[in-house]
Amino acid sequence: MSNDLTIQRTAEAVESPLVINSILESGVRNAPEQEIVYADQRRMSYRDLEERVNRLAGALAECGVKPGDTVAVMDWDTHRYLEAFFAIPMMGAVLHTVNVRLSPEQILYTLNHAEDDVILVNREFLPVLEELKDRIETVKRYVLLDDEGGNLDSQLDIAGEYEALLQQAPAEFDFPELDENTRATTFYTTGTTGLPKGVYFSHRQLVLHTFAGRAALSGSGHGRFNQDDVYMPITPMFHVHAWGVPYVATLLGVKQVYPGRYLPETLLKLLVTEKVTFSHCVPTIIQMLLQAEAAKNVDLKGWKVIIGGSALPKSLAKGALERGIDIYTGYGMSETCPLISLALLPPELEDADLETQVDYRTRTGRPVPMAQMRIVDDNMNEVPRDGKTQGELVLRAPWLTQGYLKDEDNSKKLWHGGWMHTGDIGVIDADGWLKITDRIKDVIKTGGEWISSLDLEGLILQHDGVAECAVVGVEDQKWGERPVALVVKGGEVDEDAIKELVSQYADKGVISRYGIPDRVVFVDELPRTSVGKLDKKKMRAEMV
Amino acid sequence: MSNDLTIQRTAEAVESPLVINSILESGVRNAPEQEIVYADQRRMSYRDLEERVNRLAGALAECGVKPGDTVAVMDWDTHRYLEAFFAIPMMGAVLHTVNVRLSPEQILYTLNHAEDDVILVNREFLPVLEELKDRIETVKRYVLLDDEGGNLDSQLDIAGEYEALLQQAPAEFDFPELDENTRATTFYTTGTTGLPKGVYFSHRQLVLHTFAGRAALSGSGHGRFNQDDVYMPITPMFHVHAWGVPYVATLLGVKQVYPGRYLPETLLKLLVTEKVTFSHCVPTIIQMLLQAEAAKNVDLKGWKVIIGGSALPKSLAKGALERGIDIYTGYGMSETCPLISLALLPPELEDADLETQVDYRTRTGRPVPMAQMRIVDDNMNEVPRDGKTQGELVLRAPWLTQGYLKDEDNSKKLWHGGWMHTGDIGVIDADGWLKITDRIKDVIKTGGEWISSLDLEGLILQHDGVAECAVVGVEDQKWGERPVALVVKGGEVDEDAIKELVSQYADKGVISRYGIPDRVVFVDELPRTSVGKLDKKKMRAEMV
Repeated sequence: MSNDLTIQRTAEAVESPLVINSILESGVRNAPEQEIVYADQRRMSYRDLEERVNRLAGALAECGVKPGDTVAVMDWDTHRYLEAFFAIPMMGAVLHTVNVRLSPEQILYTLNHAEDDVILVNREFLPVLEELKDRIETVKRYVLLDDEGGNLDSQLDIAGEYEALLQQAPAEFDFPELDENTRATTFYTTGTTGLPKGVYFSHRQLVLHTFAGRAALSGSGHGRFNQDDVYMPITPMFHVHAWGVPYVATLLGVKQVYPGRYLPETLLKLLVTEKVTFSHCVPTIIQMLLQAEAAKNVDLKGWKVIIGGSALPKSLAKGALERGIDIYTGYGMSETCPLISLALLPPELEDADLETQVDYRTRTGRPVPMAQMRIVDDNMNEVPRDGKTQGELVLRAPWLTQGYLKDEDNSKKLWHGGWMHTGDIGVIDADGWLKITDRIKDVIKTGGEWISSLDLEGLILQHDGVAECAVVGVEDQKWGERPVALVVKGGEVDEDAIKELVSQYADKGVISRYGIPDRVVFVDELPRTSVGKLDKKKMRAEMV
Repeated sequence: MSNDLTIQRTAEAVESPLVINSILESGVRNAPEQEIVYADQRRMSYRDLEERVNRLAGALAECGVKPGDTVAVMDWDTHRYLEAFFAIPMMGAVLHTVNVRLSPEQILYTLNHAEDDVILVNREFLPVLEELKDRIETVKRYVLLDDEGGNLDSQLDIAGEYEALLQQAPAEFDFPELDENTRATTFYTTGTTGLPKGVYFSHRQLVLHTFAGRAALSGSGHGRFNQDDVYMPITPMFHVHAWGVPYVATLLGVKQVYPGRYLPETLLKLLVTEKVTFSHCVPTIIQMLLQAEAAKNVDLKGWKVIIGGSALPKSLAKGALERGIDIYTGYGMSETCPLISLALLPPELEDADLETQVDYRTRTGRPVPMAQMRIVDDNMNEVPRDGKTQGELVLRAPWLTQGYLKDEDNSKKLWHGGWMHTGDIGVIDADGWLKITDRIKDVIKTGGEWISSLDLEGLILQHDGVAECAVVGVEDQKWGERPVALVVKGGEVDEDAIKELVSQYADKGVISRYGIPDRVVFVDELPRTSVGKLDKKKMRAEMV
């Protein structure tokens, strides 16, 4: 593109870079007295938030943080984390949201790889860091996060306790003017193989992700997120910025509720007392909540919940809908900031029968504005949008990670051919609905056929006696791979019953006969990764 | 800002530039079968719109249009104009929206100054162009817009009739990949002095304006613009892209109704038959509609109308509210794309009494996301946000024109000091509400005091006998300037009654005694510019 097509700028004209300062500003303007709540620990207003963001920046500057530094946070979901979401990137520093569920060795790897300069750490995680102390390479200071404001006795160089430092800091900080492509956040995705990989997002990307999310989620119709909602995340803030929703919530100026560590009783209590109307979580969490004793007497009607992280099983969607929960799928991944698609019902289906609703709500969804998706074959050619032809899902959007941190090889693979590779297998239909059928790694290749492990799991889950299910492909000399099902019982069921069920669907042509599992293994719980995803790598290893 | 703070990009990674293609794509995805209506002439779907945008690009390419060229449109509000809103910028060409209400000489000036290559012209305006023919410098071809698809007999080099050309063009056009800073649109602002000045906007600016508009206008609460609304502009598409709302409407996928030329009967008929729920216009238009004979039996309840272009008088707001119209102020100007602020009620005031509502709805509003406003003194220092201290309003936002086309001097003045100068005088209060009190040029400087002509007009309009009013400052040897009021009678009133009314407010301290007008002149109608704004320059000239 020749440059003479671009607009002329007057010398003093300001383009107004896309920086997250504007998100905070918008919320404070819209709703200065609106509440931000941290469990039963703290209630404050958006005006307070703005002042505390300024104080936090001042406190961190006092600890030596300068533009380009990296500041890590190890905390549960709190108002402090929200403050860090803004203050650190607004200083021109990088916010590293540490996955506290990783093993100590993995945490150590990410701290060193990200070259963290300062860590804000909840007292609960001090023992981990103290143990790792001598092997943490770049960290100079620590800030203690502690609801009690307790003592600072530690082997680490603790600059002070968070609240005390904020009180000492000035109420106004002179934030620098930043280029919109300044790196704002970083965090690590573990996947199922290899070392954790760092993804990273700029101010511009966070702003555009926020506005696209706002556009996709707001307005009339079911499942929408508007000014009169009350928001509580149930996806950790260290996991893809709690899906970026805290930024959308702040832009809107809605009431925000941060629940600390996720305990079913606390979550349910906050749901009721704070009148929460909008959340998001992985399927496991909603399942846990629905089954919790404490949930029996709680009215969940009208609670809007986006499910992501892994596929929303139809049975779970149905159960949630029957409790009055407005549940639907959102799709994305660490590499995508994460929002890519939402399974909101088209207006004409809002009153459809339960089965139809379940069908749509459990799809992977339609892309949000500015996101582009394609299903491609091995040569990067787009396959027909016929709802049948499978291939890898590749993406473009203004907020996709532009590589993996200090990892050229994997960055190249991620962006091979000018589209971001998801590693997911799916189909797109003529109306633009995406359905992920599997992970590339989880497709079972047997007898020359591709069997979707997700399809198979969906069928097996229809048995009343099955509570949870995972299917993996296990190496087989004759067939290449053969499916094996892991099942958590929820009632009466045995191996034959499951094989018989799948066989019936094979008779109907729903699934290939190759899909009838060779073995069904009953387990107490399914192996999961630190972020709650099914750990099929581990399952495959165990099933050989 | 040092470059090492910006994110690393993998060689093949795609940043996804902000181009308006994504706006069209979003609407077609969300609502492929949704309707777009042109008066009683045409009904089509979003799917049709997408195909016709492709065909129009093909037809224009056939006429020789290439990236960097400028294509002008001279039409009333039609589906064709909406197609041009997308097709021309998506080709990498510049859309010049010609103000057809300008004088022929002014139109000629803008065609030559913008260096138009092709003009899409409604048959109604052919005589104007034929008369100017020999003095139009750069235009090579014309495309005829004609609801009847009539003959092409003209002295101009007409490439063909619009519909015929579209039919001949292929259904798919290969749009180029554009830099987001590519110039997309241009048009001219006449102001009250000097030659028309060209403003211009890039793809990036239009996209960000659209998302900010979407964020500000959607959601719960009164006055919002959502998926279930029906949109009809009553601000011409040649006037600041009909305030950019057609882009917001397309992003959403709402039903859009284009009324052609603005005739009260047509507008009211479409309101009813197409169930229009959302519009925007200048005060004069809503006044005209409310007074139209045809409006007497029309139920206007629930119709949401943003008023801009000039201040919304309290009396008009009250009258509209009493008819059930959800009326409120939007603020912006040609230089600002235009959206800057909206006077939406805070949630706690949605049920407030009529007087309170009128007070808020007639303010200038609070800024939309990403817009920043300051009131400054002559030295560019910000004045207190106390709702009292006046100064010039200056702005920053990602969608402000970065200068005037080929006009370095005025560009420098516009952006003097790194903020965009509006030429408006106003105050901001502690809650961030802006109130424009006057144009810099329209403040009356008398006896060392600044009297707001708008304040004075507001007081005079409270007299039952006054239908319309404008106050200007007229040169005075002793006092510098003295106020003179021009009044259109709506009942019994005389000069003394008006002076007495203002005098009473001076007694109460509402306005300075210097504000009592020297003269009151009764006129049949107030002089207005081509876009319907009060022409105070003309009034001052006539009142000397």
